[in-house]
Amino acid sequence: MKVINGGICAAKGFKASGIYCGIKKPAIDNKNPDKPHKNDLGLILSDTLCSTAAVYTTNKVKGAPILVTKKNLEKTNGKSRAVIVNSKNANTCNADGEEKATRMCVLAANELGIKAEEVIVASTGVIGQILPIEPIENGIGELAEKLSYEGNEEAATAIMTTDTIKKEYAVEFEIDDKICHLGGMAKGSGMIHPNMATTLNFITTDVAISSEMLQKALDEIVKVTYNCLSIDGDTSTNDMVSLMANGLAGNNEITETNEAFETFKTALYEVMANLTRMLAKDGEGASKLLECICTGCPTKDDAIIIAKSVIGSTLFKCAIFGEDANWGRVLCAIGYADAEFDITKVDVDLKSEFGTVAVCRNGAGVEFSEEEAAKILSSDEIQVLVNLNQGNENATAWGCDLTYDYVKINGDYRT
Amino acid sequence: MKVINGGICAAKGFKASGIYCGIKKPAIDNKNPDKPHKNDLGLILSDTLCSTAAVYTTNKVKGAPILVTKKNLEKTNGKSRAVIVNSKNANTCNADGEEKATRMCVLAANELGIKAEEVIVASTGVIGQILPIEPIENGIGELAEKLSYEGNEEAATAIMTTDTIKKEYAVEFEIDDKICHLGGMAKGSGMIHPNMATTLNFITTDVAISSEMLQKALDEIVKVTYNCLSIDGDTSTNDMVSLMANGLAGNNEITETNEAFETFKTALYEVMANLTRMLAKDGEGASKLLECICTGCPTKDDAIIIAKSVIGSTLFKCAIFGEDANWGRVLCAIGYADAEFDITKVDVDLKSEFGTVAVCRNGAGVEFSEEEAAKILSSDEIQVLVNLNQGNENATAWGCDLTYDYVKINGDYRT
Repeated sequence: MKVINGGICAAKGFKASGIYCGIKKPAIDNKNPDKPHKNDLGLILSDTLCSTAAVYTTNKVKGAPILVTKKNLEKTNGKSRAVIVNSKNANTCNADGEEKATRMCVLAANELGIKAEEVIVASTGVIGQILPIEPIENGIGELAEKLSYEGNEEAATAIMTTDTIKKEYAVEFEIDDKICHLGGMAKGSGMIHPNMATTLNFITTDVAISSEMLQKALDEIVKVTYNCLSIDGDTSTNDMVSLMANGLAGNNEITETNEAFETFKTALYEVMANLTRMLAKDGEGASKLLECICTGCPTKDDAIIIAKSVIGSTLFKCAIFGEDANWGRVLCAIGYADAEFDITKVDVDLKSEFGTVAVCRNGAGVEFSEEEAAKILSSDEIQVLVNLNQGNENATAWGCDLTYDYVKINGDYRT
Repeated sequence: MKVINGGICAAKGFKASGIYCGIKKPAIDNKNPDKPHKNDLGLILSDTLCSTAAVYTTNKVKGAPILVTKKNLEKTNGKSRAVIVNSKNANTCNADGEEKATRMCVLAANELGIKAEEVIVASTGVIGQILPIEPIENGIGELAEKLSYEGNEEAATAIMTTDTIKKEYAVEFEIDDKICHLGGMAKGSGMIHPNMATTLNFITTDVAISSEMLQKALDEIVKVTYNCLSIDGDTSTNDMVSLMANGLAGNNEITETNEAFETFKTALYEVMANLTRMLAKDGEGASKLLECICTGCPTKDDAIIIAKSVIGSTLFKCAIFGEDANWGRVLCAIGYADAEFDITKVDVDLKSEFGTVAVCRNGAGVEFSEEEAAKILSSDEIQVLVNLNQGNENATAWGCDLTYDYVKINGDYRT
């Protein structure tokens, strides 16, 4: 398995593009008047029809694009050709939401010469403001024209809202002696909490695989990657991951659980876990990446629940921001996790590039050097190691610290 | 029902006291060297044995004082005479925790001439640091000596940690033509989240009532008051409410559900709801009280769950801090609440002393004046009115905004 460039264009036969069409406010930079506007409209197109899997937010308030995408994939029995996506406006809680989302599919389909139901549509941004459709109508021609096999970066920037960096990851691997590729792009910074733990993620691959097996792989891997991420405990209305596989790698189509399927899942985990890590590190206002690695658990689900509880603790997130080794808050968060275990066996260590310090053994505090702990916590990537010492299952969850900037960003998001 | 002064000393036969014994760091004030230290040790004593009810944290990590209090109340079949409580150190996750908590009961009992198992013990503060027992041993004599029927304020300040104001509330009412009193004190500012939604609450009454009926009343009222409070989503390890009834009002002992029991519950709700409101308003770093009043629900539980989901939303809390009418975040939080309902019927209004503005009808946004909304949100007490329009049940939940100061306070709590 090799890490490669190319994001969503790493797999054969996938083009992408991104433009500024006018949904975001113009990026006015007086010092640099020729600076391009931030992209706000993106497109992905596969040369051939793709097996397609998707998972959606569990929020009862579902963005109109989610509803339309779901219907489209039902109509096509899990097939698609393209994705159209805008940022800045979530097209959610609007009376005309579905109409507008459907219109986006039709606009893309007409321009690309495909069927409207072969288009996945997504939107991200402010909830409850009418989506202006004119900028999309006016921009769709340029967007299609710009489609390119190297267009991944333009598309990856088009889905950014409060994100400070674009998020792409891709790998190369072999199935049946054929070179295969799998890559993805993600956006998300706030309103991030398990079930579906991110906003938008688009993944493409040239592996030949049936829609059923694709969905199975996605469901399995989402559980241990995106759904183990929390920035702020708010589950978005527009969360979606889509996974398109066009088969151009030429392997024998995967239609059952076999070695090829395991290889595919490993690649999918690699890409999704790394995108998840990027999302956590770029959490709104975050200054530190927080990873909780929970081991020695009776079941996988216990490990996930406990790891998520730790990285979700507002108080521990503040302590990490303050570089304060307040491990009592880790124990507290383990204690209110919805899992059954013996708290008196739990060990906790804090770790970073600067070392490891044991802070708790058998559920009780142990003496440690505050100086050493402060040094470890001065890193911008902190690991909390929780060992339950009561089984062999483990899981990782990703989050970030809670900072002044998170409050600032979200105190006035709409303007 | 009349609001009166006196807190935990409002009911007949309850004395209280509070001192600085040396668990908190000395409050050094160079400008004012004679300024008294902050209290860190408190005591309550009833003239006679009390029927006693209590509820405890649901966190698996339970503070040692919780375990000892629980055992004591089991031994006495729900009877008690006194409460001893310290702040600054939670006596939790320490190998010698139960031993120290038991020692606190013995110290108080010996000084007061009562049995150790008649003492309720509580601690609040940092988790995982050994509790120094010497200051308590040295201070217990003075603490007992200072006991007074007007000692409520000294006790109420002794339980404060990051609280900025002491929290007391009391009412007077009649049962069987007898004048009755019920009062309480509470502490809590951070690590506050439903199940048991606060840290320490002590309530006293002179009503004659059996321990069974007392527990029944407490369970019912906790559900709609303290458990409807969230500051930061972290359920503390030391949460406890105790309710002591000494019967000195002289009413016929309440032993079944009757009119007197209903009156008692009304008084209990009045005190606990007001203490809850005070806790929310004094949430760590809070600049605004946030109340969500959820009406028109199919069931009471739905109303509670939805109201709690709204006041628990980190993003909405930030928006309120920024005085930004970002109602989409309210809809989002309603949407991920774990309740069954039709989102397309939901109405939302924002309200304060400065007026009311409708922001959402039938699950979709309506036009409103941003200027008017900003005016309403400039108040320091904000109400979010959610009407599901699908039933007759309702509930209120209390919280606060999320501010820079919350992050600051919790970035370096231990020092």
